[in-house]
Amino acid sequence: MRRLEFWFDFASTYSYVAAMRIDDLCRDAGVALKWVPFLLGPIFQLQGWNDSPFNLNERRGAYMWRDLERLAAKYRLRWRRPTVFPRASTLAARVAASVADEVWCGDFVRAVYVANFGDDLDISDEQVVAGLLDGFGRDGSSIVKRSLEPERRGLLRANTERGIELGIFGAPNCVVGRELFWGEEALEDAIAWSQKEG
Amino acid sequence: MRRLEFWFDFASTYSYVAAMRIDDLCRDAGVALKWVPFLLGPIFQLQGWNDSPFNLNERRGAYMWRDLERLAAKYRLRWRRPTVFPRASTLAARVAASVADEVWCGDFVRAVYVANFGDDLDISDEQVVAGLLDGFGRDGSSIVKRSLEPERRGLLRANTERGIELGIFGAPNCVVGRELFWGEEALEDAIAWSQKEG
Repeated sequence: MRRLEFWFDFASTYSYVAAMRIDDLCRDAGVALKWVPFLLGPIFQLQGWNDSPFNLNERRGAYMWRDLERLAAKYRLRWRRPTVFPRASTLAARVAASVADEVWCGDFVRAVYVANFGDDLDISDEQVVAGLLDGFGRDGSSIVKRSLEPERRGLLRANTERGIELGIFGAPNCVVGRELFWGEEALEDAIAWSQKEG
Repeated sequence: MRRLEFWFDFASTYSYVAAMRIDDLCRDAGVALKWVPFLLGPIFQLQGWNDSPFNLNERRGAYMWRDLERLAAKYRLRWRRPTVFPRASTLAARVAASVADEVWCGDFVRAVYVANFGDDLDISDEQVVAGLLDGFGRDGSSIVKRSLEPERRGLLRANTERGIELGIFGAPNCVVGRELFWGEEALEDAIAWSQKEG
């Protein structure tokens, strides 16, 4: 089956918009979706940045916040500019990496994004993350606990290291084979590519 | 009538793709198009860059060149990676600023872009630029000469200064009113906005 990897960081604003759309797009196109959480931090460091480029570059940042308002309206997504940006995303990403093969992984990903960018909640808090899992009928605290066990902690780092090898420099991304598509606007091109190559 | 400004730098790869598409998109949508050449150099300097970010950031640059191959194939545009990047675009931009109100301005803009990114020609050369104008029945050398006269030289700088005020940080851009849309992928959103506001 055609297959597409969706690479995201929970701190990334454009990944929010893309994460809310990608599941439906893949389903409509008959493409199997794999959720791949990773951390932008080490990848930004490779580029000499110790913060989000949207914070480091005021002009770029001002545009992004306005663009997100427009995109949220376009796709009817809940939107509240978070009071902390970027939010520490490691905990939620560890959980996502741990449950990436569960059929409900997409529900969790979307819940975290809405918490961060729709409700301004602290997604670095274990109780917040556990509560999101509880919210769709999972045992949140035990899932979070399991995600932080030593043998699972390496999953997220392995994703990030593979992302570095793939040439990733930002988020979100779709990866089809070794072909990289960066940006919220590239989802449709990535899906078209997966169908061409499939 | 609904109106959209297309802001471009002839050195910009993504502006090439957008410039080849924007005229048809506007015509189909009933939106009046205004060509606005400007220089990225002073705007990059505001962000602390003395070169294209695609040269300064190797990972970002590698992605851009691959992306351009794909976009050129998608839109059936001639494409040859230029041997000089970014090419000095001031001369061609001065000419474009000087002829921005001519009905054939779009023909000139597209000819310059194809010269730079399809044919790897030196668009900073007066004879090359004059030849492009000659190619669609204009008197190239006199148009180039007039564009460089003192009273016309300020047009390009005025555009760039207005771009700084508008918050521009890259290219291409569409501007509708004071609303800024950055990037090759944002053309359709900009047109939709101009229709909503029109």
